[in-house]
Amino acid sequence: MPLRLSHLFLRTLRDNPADAEVASHQLLVRAGYIRRAAPGVYTWLPLGLTVLRKIEAIVREEMNRIGAQEVHFPALLPKEPYEATGRWDDYGDGIFRLKDRKEADYLLAPTHEEVFTLLVKDLYSSYKDLPLSIYQIQTKYRDEARPRAGLLRGREFIMKDSYSFALTEEDQSAAYDAHREAYLRIFDRLGLPVVPVNAQSGAMGGSASEEFLFPCDIGEDTFVESDGGFRANVEAVTTPAPEPLDFSELPAAQVHHTPGTDTIATLVDAANTHQPRADREWTAADTLKNVVVAAVLPDGTRRIVVLGVPGNREVDLKRAEATIGGLLGVGGEVALEAANETDLKKHPGLVRGYIGPGLSLDAPVLGTESSGISYLVDPRVVSGTSWITGANQADQHVFGLVAGRDFGWDGIIESVVVESGDPAPDGSGPLRTRRGIEMGHIFHLGTRYAEALGLQVLDVNGKLATVTMGSYGFGVTRALAAIAEATHDEKGLIWPAAIAPADVHLVATGKGEEVYAAAEALIAELEDAGLSAIYDDRPKVSPGVKFGDAELLGVPMLVTVGRGLKNGTIELKDRRSGESREVPVAEAAAEVLAHVKGLQDSKGAR
Amino acid sequence: MPLRLSHLFLRTLRDNPADAEVASHQLLVRAGYIRRAAPGVYTWLPLGLTVLRKIEAIVREEMNRIGAQEVHFPALLPKEPYEATGRWDDYGDGIFRLKDRKEADYLLAPTHEEVFTLLVKDLYSSYKDLPLSIYQIQTKYRDEARPRAGLLRGREFIMKDSYSFALTEEDQSAAYDAHREAYLRIFDRLGLPVVPVNAQSGAMGGSASEEFLFPCDIGEDTFVESDGGFRANVEAVTTPAPEPLDFSELPAAQVHHTPGTDTIATLVDAANTHQPRADREWTAADTLKNVVVAAVLPDGTRRIVVLGVPGNREVDLKRAEATIGGLLGVGGEVALEAANETDLKKHPGLVRGYIGPGLSLDAPVLGTESSGISYLVDPRVVSGTSWITGANQADQHVFGLVAGRDFGWDGIIESVVVESGDPAPDGSGPLRTRRGIEMGHIFHLGTRYAEALGLQVLDVNGKLATVTMGSYGFGVTRALAAIAEATHDEKGLIWPAAIAPADVHLVATGKGEEVYAAAEALIAELEDAGLSAIYDDRPKVSPGVKFGDAELLGVPMLVTVGRGLKNGTIELKDRRSGESREVPVAEAAAEVLAHVKGLQDSKGAR
Repeated sequence: MPLRLSHLFLRTLRDNPADAEVASHQLLVRAGYIRRAAPGVYTWLPLGLTVLRKIEAIVREEMNRIGAQEVHFPALLPKEPYEATGRWDDYGDGIFRLKDRKEADYLLAPTHEEVFTLLVKDLYSSYKDLPLSIYQIQTKYRDEARPRAGLLRGREFIMKDSYSFALTEEDQSAAYDAHREAYLRIFDRLGLPVVPVNAQSGAMGGSASEEFLFPCDIGEDTFVESDGGFRANVEAVTTPAPEPLDFSELPAAQVHHTPGTDTIATLVDAANTHQPRADREWTAADTLKNVVVAAVLPDGTRRIVVLGVPGNREVDLKRAEATIGGLLGVGGEVALEAANETDLKKHPGLVRGYIGPGLSLDAPVLGTESSGISYLVDPRVVSGTSWITGANQADQHVFGLVAGRDFGWDGIIESVVVESGDPAPDGSGPLRTRRGIEMGHIFHLGTRYAEALGLQVLDVNGKLATVTMGSYGFGVTRALAAIAEATHDEKGLIWPAAIAPADVHLVATGKGEEVYAAAEALIAELEDAGLSAIYDDRPKVSPGVKFGDAELLGVPMLVTVGRGLKNGTIELKDRRSGESREVPVAEAAAEVLAHVKGLQDSKGAR
Repeated sequence: MPLRLSHLFLRTLRDNPADAEVASHQLLVRAGYIRRAAPGVYTWLPLGLTVLRKIEAIVREEMNRIGAQEVHFPALLPKEPYEATGRWDDYGDGIFRLKDRKEADYLLAPTHEEVFTLLVKDLYSSYKDLPLSIYQIQTKYRDEARPRAGLLRGREFIMKDSYSFALTEEDQSAAYDAHREAYLRIFDRLGLPVVPVNAQSGAMGGSASEEFLFPCDIGEDTFVESDGGFRANVEAVTTPAPEPLDFSELPAAQVHHTPGTDTIATLVDAANTHQPRADREWTAADTLKNVVVAAVLPDGTRRIVVLGVPGNREVDLKRAEATIGGLLGVGGEVALEAANETDLKKHPGLVRGYIGPGLSLDAPVLGTESSGISYLVDPRVVSGTSWITGANQADQHVFGLVAGRDFGWDGIIESVVVESGDPAPDGSGPLRTRRGIEMGHIFHLGTRYAEALGLQVLDVNGKLATVTMGSYGFGVTRALAAIAEATHDEKGLIWPAAIAPADVHLVATGKGEEVYAAAEALIAELEDAGLSAIYDDRPKVSPGVKFGDAELLGVPMLVTVGRGLKNGTIELKDRRSGESREVPVAEAAAEVLAHVKGLQDSKGAR
């Protein structure tokens, strides 16, 4: 049975909803695929649900193909397992917590590492049971600070999450590789171009991971790539450290009075005016900028950190967050934010605009116990490099301050924005930066969860051994939105054939009964051949509205039974290219079948 | 590909889990279909998930068949719509409530009337859009006081809920009838014998409803049926009121000293000893028992009610709850409970063991403004009936107290336990009482939700008209448990063919390679013919364990490739009947196919 628009629970909108800023969100609402139920929480209408289920089916097929077995966990879970791994606290405000009538603590799970681990512990006890990969396609919850872009960052959403369990690194790597291949096949079938990039693993606690990013200007992630094939999330980019320089010939540092130079720009101007260099002008790259930030530990305490970076670079706190915890010797999630007035008041030695590394001047010696402030520098600040930087006194800068001779540091941190032109860490050439949306993420977890929850099995020698794990996330609802984002045009959605809500959208126009009879006959033929159809049979709707709705809904193959019928023809139109042609009624079904087959083979999106 | 037990994520248990009291719960855990994640919250293992999805598919097919369209709502919903209908408060402790990071109130929805209503309001505006039936198969949450019996009363569970929208009673009745027929088809396909019974509609606020009960000793619902075809939940049974009797010839009431008669039994004994009746003995049915209860209003206040019932009947507070709100003129859910000491102390005129209706004696006059107590009587207490009852003074009873002559009442209420032998309200003969599990519930909702949420559409005359609704619930996870309950035996589960996790469970026994080769060949043949198989290929597991697991898992068709192979035969066994036979290898596939087809046609369970 076709989906008849005279009865389908659908209402298309001419105007973009006020709260929708990105095209996928606008079009999915306008075309009647989803409706907002609360911020970041959506209701699926019939067409949206059909597309969603098709994506789920593809994901399921590819998971089953690699031997992963499907299970299904509750969304409502008790606190205890998440407390055992520390994530109950680590997630901070990012998860929904609640109490039952007996005041027991629960959460709506954001991911399920803990309970998958416990389930395997419950069922399995021997190396013979491993390796194992299990997965679910399930509703997840995150209390996002800023739900945005419709389904792209929601608070209730569907994910496929898999977990692998192995006793050896080889088996774990094989499971990881199998998932990687499966993900690439899924994206290929979905017609969604993604790039796998190296990534930091954040709260998951893993040791290695890759993200699958859909390159897209509205993406929240930034990644880099080089012509030589290097690709990584910016958080995972490392700066090739220059070789240390010989500083034996360098002149001693000199402090200069530099009033009104509390920005890099004014400092560079002043330097060129009052202390010009013979061979070339000073630039921002010659200055060392010292940025005061606060590290917020999991227990809420704030620790002051000064980041020393070349003056021509901007600080990227998200990159710095990836390693700050380790550098400070703190477990759990450590957030970085700009230092506030209260922070600064506690450290009057930090003279805004004139902060420098620790010097033998009347200034706080950074990076020592006495100040309690950690001084962390960019990898470019190698021994022997010479800098113009603050002298820790108002209106004073020091020129020719040499790293490793005049100042030291507590650690080295990647804390600046990666820029196009930076060298790839593997020497494969200069990097380009691009924006992307994270569609999937695969992790080597190591033994973190197995250790926290006691997942051990008997190994081949009859001894208890801790299990090694991997976890593999795939955003199902997000994939739907990303595909809409990737394939739409100004008229509406354009679905890849593999996940379109129907194979054919047939519009009947005109008032004669013969039009509707011919349309019904064609649909019967197409359905007999295994195709599905949306059929616009609305009797009192104008052809313009019908064509507009057809283009908005986005089925890739459009068929019109109308004006041509008196000449014995039906119109076929490719939604993407806009190309159309008239075919004789008797050949229409065969032509539609051939066209749909072509779309399916080409996967629609390319 | 068969499900190979050498790799399937499964562990069967020999012993019943400590927390499982009913057979379905015990067996579903022991057979590795589900695992408990928290009280009333379960994880689905691969076999359980397969059965669950098959049930969902049948429900979906039958919903689609009646033209209902599938949508999908969030589980996480904002408070406001539920506040508009009053259910945010009415549900009391029965729902999970939570706050997001902005302190906004949310709930995990127990049912979705409100948001379905709002969605239709959002999309539709005209009579031309109606009637409409939409549904979802979705995860629901209820914070049950006592989650029990595994999946039969859980806190996270899957329901199919549909809602119909119409402008006329005819259209609404047609949608109701269509759902009723669909439900009967679903239960038929699931092989689950259910009986539709008339029901009160409780918190849903409807005007008429039916429950589909699976008759079962462990059921929490009691229903009645007569040979003449009357069937109802006990809460929906009405007592045929006897005709008023002429009391003009009856003697005046007399108070007697009846020390030590504060129970019906001691009162009847004393009456027969000291005031014997000429024609026959006094029985409990001659006494009027007055039971003090407290009605707890939605705002928490307690109102005292005295229930006057024949002394041979027990009070059923759940039945009384169905109508108490209306009788007291109070909206929302009113709970009834036994009066406590505090309640009784406030009314010293209520002399325990000697309470009677209001009399012109030194006692509180029940049912008047002055006492604040409502006096509600059983329908059997009609005008002219004569009773032995309390005289509102210690050690005093009154004999021959005539209803309508000597005492009155504030209302009539169904408040006693319906007993086998009671007459059916429709005159179709005596009732039998049975226990059952509620599998589905269909409601005429009327305009309650549409009015509360402003769902109006333009009618054929261009005027705004309020939409009439119905709601239709079906417990998907509960159905799975009920089927397990209905069809198991002492050895394990026995699934109806339509929802079994596989069509065939094939056990290979023995050590020779030829056994496994023959088994693989047979499976290939069966799979080519479209059957699915569980294949016990575990190399080092004894035949006894394999057979035990096969019977525990409950696939209805068992095949053994083993000892008979040297004689050229394979064993086929029907799991339910236990009948087995050897068939030649060459004919095995055809025989299996024929047997499975027979099981499918018979729907397995009957």
